[in-house]
Amino acid sequence: MSAERFEKKKTIDLRKKHIGPSCKIFFSHDPIKIVQAKGQYMYDEKGQRYLDCINNVAHVGHCHPDVVKAGAQQMELLNTNSRFLHDNLVLYAQRLQATLPDKLSVCYFVNSGSEANDLALRLAWQYTGNKDIITLDNAYHGHVSSLIDISPYKFHQSSDAEQNQYVHVAPSPDVYRGKYRGEHLDPATAYADEVKDMVQRVHKKGGKIAAFIAESLQSCGGQVIPPQGYFQQVAQHVREAGGIFIADEVQVGFGRVGTHFWAFQLQGEDFVPDIVTMGKPIGNGHPMSCVVTTKEVAEAFMSSGMEYFNTFGGNPVSCAIGMAVLDVIVKEDLQGNALRVGRYLTNLLEKQKEKHPLVGDIRGRGLFVGLELVKDRLKLTPATAEAQEVIYRLKEQYILLSADGPHRNVLKFKPPMCFTTEDADLVVDKIDHVLTGMSHFPITFFTLCITAG
Amino acid sequence: MSAERFEKKKTIDLRKKHIGPSCKIFFSHDPIKIVQAKGQYMYDEKGQRYLDCINNVAHVGHCHPDVVKAGAQQMELLNTNSRFLHDNLVLYAQRLQATLPDKLSVCYFVNSGSEANDLALRLAWQYTGNKDIITLDNAYHGHVSSLIDISPYKFHQSSDAEQNQYVHVAPSPDVYRGKYRGEHLDPATAYADEVKDMVQRVHKKGGKIAAFIAESLQSCGGQVIPPQGYFQQVAQHVREAGGIFIADEVQVGFGRVGTHFWAFQLQGEDFVPDIVTMGKPIGNGHPMSCVVTTKEVAEAFMSSGMEYFNTFGGNPVSCAIGMAVLDVIVKEDLQGNALRVGRYLTNLLEKQKEKHPLVGDIRGRGLFVGLELVKDRLKLTPATAEAQEVIYRLKEQYILLSADGPHRNVLKFKPPMCFTTEDADLVVDKIDHVLTGMSHFPITFFTLCITAG
Ligand SMILES: Cc1ncc(COP(=O)(O)O)c(C=O)c1O
Ligand SMILES: Cc1ncc(COP(=O)(O)O)c(C=O)c1O
Repeated sequence: MSAERFEKKKTIDLRKKHIGPSCKIFFSHDPIKIVQAKGQYMYDEKGQRYLDCINNVAHVGHCHPDVVKAGAQQMELLNTNSRFLHDNLVLYAQRLQATLPDKLSVCYFVNSGSEANDLALRLAWQYTGNKDIITLDNAYHGHVSSLIDISPYKFHQSSDAEQNQYVHVAPSPDVYRGKYRGEHLDPATAYADEVKDMVQRVHKKGGKIAAFIAESLQSCGGQVIPPQGYFQQVAQHVREAGGIFIADEVQVGFGRVGTHFWAFQLQGEDFVPDIVTMGKPIGNGHPMSCVVTTKEVAEAFMSSGMEYFNTFGGNPVSCAIGMAVLDVIVKEDLQGNALRVGRYLTNLLEKQKEKHPLVGDIRGRGLFVGLELVKDRLKLTPATAEAQEVIYRLKEQYILLSADGPHRNVLKFKPPMCFTTEDADLVVDKIDHVLTGMSHFPITFFTLCITAG
Repeated sequence: MSAERFEKKKTIDLRKKHIGPSCKIFFSHDPIKIVQAKGQYMYDEKGQRYLDCINNVAHVGHCHPDVVKAGAQQMELLNTNSRFLHDNLVLYAQRLQATLPDKLSVCYFVNSGSEANDLALRLAWQYTGNKDIITLDNAYHGHVSSLIDISPYKFHQSSDAEQNQYVHVAPSPDVYRGKYRGEHLDPATAYADEVKDMVQRVHKKGGKIAAFIAESLQSCGGQVIPPQGYFQQVAQHVREAGGIFIADEVQVGFGRVGTHFWAFQLQGEDFVPDIVTMGKPIGNGHPMSCVVTTKEVAEAFMSSGMEYFNTFGGNPVSCAIGMAVLDVIVKEDLQGNALRVGRYLTNLLEKQKEKHPLVGDIRGRGLFVGLELVKDRLKLTPATAEAQEVIYRLKEQYILLSADGPHRNVLKFKPPMCFTTEDADLVVDKIDHVLTGMSHFPITFFTLCITAG
């Protein structure tokens, strides 16, 4: 198959005709057609190279040859469901288990972050016999209906969404913009106490907590890094109420944070979730994901008598690919690279903060970094249009970055893990230019849209 | 990667340790380890060949070289999300659209049958503004929580499941064992009137119908073929109530029924669903699926303001694989083969019915065939143990078949579409032997289990 079949204009027209309009495209005013990718680079139909700072799914680098080879070889041999015995399934489960605390020993293989989180909810409901879920403000956990219900990031978007009565939204533990900030003496306890109070309110109304769910670091929510000790305290309150703790590692797992393989481990060795959900980077783009839990939770789920069958989950191809990804992470020391390059990038960005008043906050762990733009460092007025402008200007310089968070003013870095210090130099240099330009000619994103037609 | 890494015993032990026990295995008393497959054959770790009569996912044949090649080539080039323009996405959408009535023109690409059906529900809720769903008895629509709610096949399995108040279960239009049978003058109208009455009851209680969902032919529900004209009448009642019609083609689509590409088309040209969901065979095992709907439904979904983002859905690799599957179906005339071999198989099975009193009913379309075993042809007492015994005995003869339906007494044939008349001869000959043996020595499945340890 040749890389391009249609003129870009025709691709856009066909997309309008045949693809659901709710499926959004990057840079909708002038979208990019990508036909090829390698490592941390993507190429458009004219061969123009883009530096990719956002595709955390292409974890070990776009089209990594080892991963492609593992997939292709297994596709030739066998691809079937997990109702037959296969070594890839158990080998891969064993390998994933080895990266986790011992008690997280039972895997369920599924096909997407959404399937993983939905199954996590089902496990929690069945294990606890309870129904109420506590989620964080601005959280996103997936696109199936049960997850829209627990994703304020989504249900805030909809005019007519009513909040599910079993879902309770706790404040995001954001020490920059949240309820308790950097100057607070003990934000971890303060935020955890919010959850404790919420549990009590739920109990008063006759509810019962099944689970607390949170990303180990909030990504769509604005690259939020919870204060250390927060999860331990939340887990205690939630477990005392009969609920369990679900850590969503769909965006942040697999070594991205640099110091640890899993982002929940940043909280300390004394913290172990009851369920961990994985996705995105797990197969470097192959549709797969996983839920890992304890024996106790798995046995309770089994005791309902209901079989769990997922047609594609855990097929030998997905497992072969998953193992190849784990191999490459080790072989190329990508976790170490995330630590080193992540620190380097964060340092460069800190210097931008000194230079540009618009840069309000730099926060990150490894190659998961956020740069929050504000118009006023005291009032923290979100610089939303400016963030959009940075993104568009970088695109003109062939750099892919995106903005997120409830105010869409947080530039988020989550590149393929082979990102280098040279790449960091390049992107920060370009950001410096854009920010410098903007301080001289503060045109807004909206002006730009009008001129761009 | 070598095909086998562990002794079978070790694989079983590791599976017990690391894979959720709710994930069941075929022939749990003595499971099969499959290491390779080709066409309609699977091979165990000793090289023993099995004839595969059940894997409808491996639609164009296990590991079809054209499909493997398309996947491998695209994996090398690019695999990323649909926020970038890509020709595979629009080309594939166009190709799928061409197989459907014109008004079904908008696609959403997702990763599993469950994701497809959950999205179909979300579309229906948003488009109609209503909440109530009518589903058929014994239906299975997927494993995510919203679908367990509408899958009596599943929620009947669980001791403590409570039925969702928005879900209403209409009788399965089964003319063999259902409420209105073969001798009824107009079962299509009788079954459709049940839906009409249900709509009225829902209205009386203040509910409002969002959708009726059904497989075009019920598979897990027992290979049920609804009488012609049933869907038209149901659609009329449901649409009059403001609801829409969702046809689940996850098991039965892509030419399997022989005369048509989609099983809903068996009802006649005057029937067009509002939403069609696809899955299983769509990628010959690759995790992918699709929801197709009308412009009106898609626009209503968009008007909520909520973006729909599915990380892996519609990636260039899945689309390349999907197109390769469509190509092979045409190139090898697999739909024609399904028609011819399906007729041949059904005729052979009809002769078994003449010969063995245990065979109560033969029903099928193309390579989707059910053989229902009963102990008494008048009372229709399900011959459940006997069905299990047939399955186990065939396995000893290296033939893979399974039993399903609410009484697990329906032998279901849904082989890869390259199944031949010789394959049909073989499996029917073996069934004949087993049934003949059973009439002389009516030992039960349970006896067999005990002797087998
Ligand atoms: C934190 C988090 N959880 C879950 C999901 C859902 O993953 P998927 O799109 O694979 O269903 C996402 C996707 O963006 C996510 O960011
Ligand atoms: C009719 C039907 N719909 C939906 C599904 C769910 O598909 P998946 O397992 O790919 O989620 C199945 C799976 O068996 C099915 O048979």
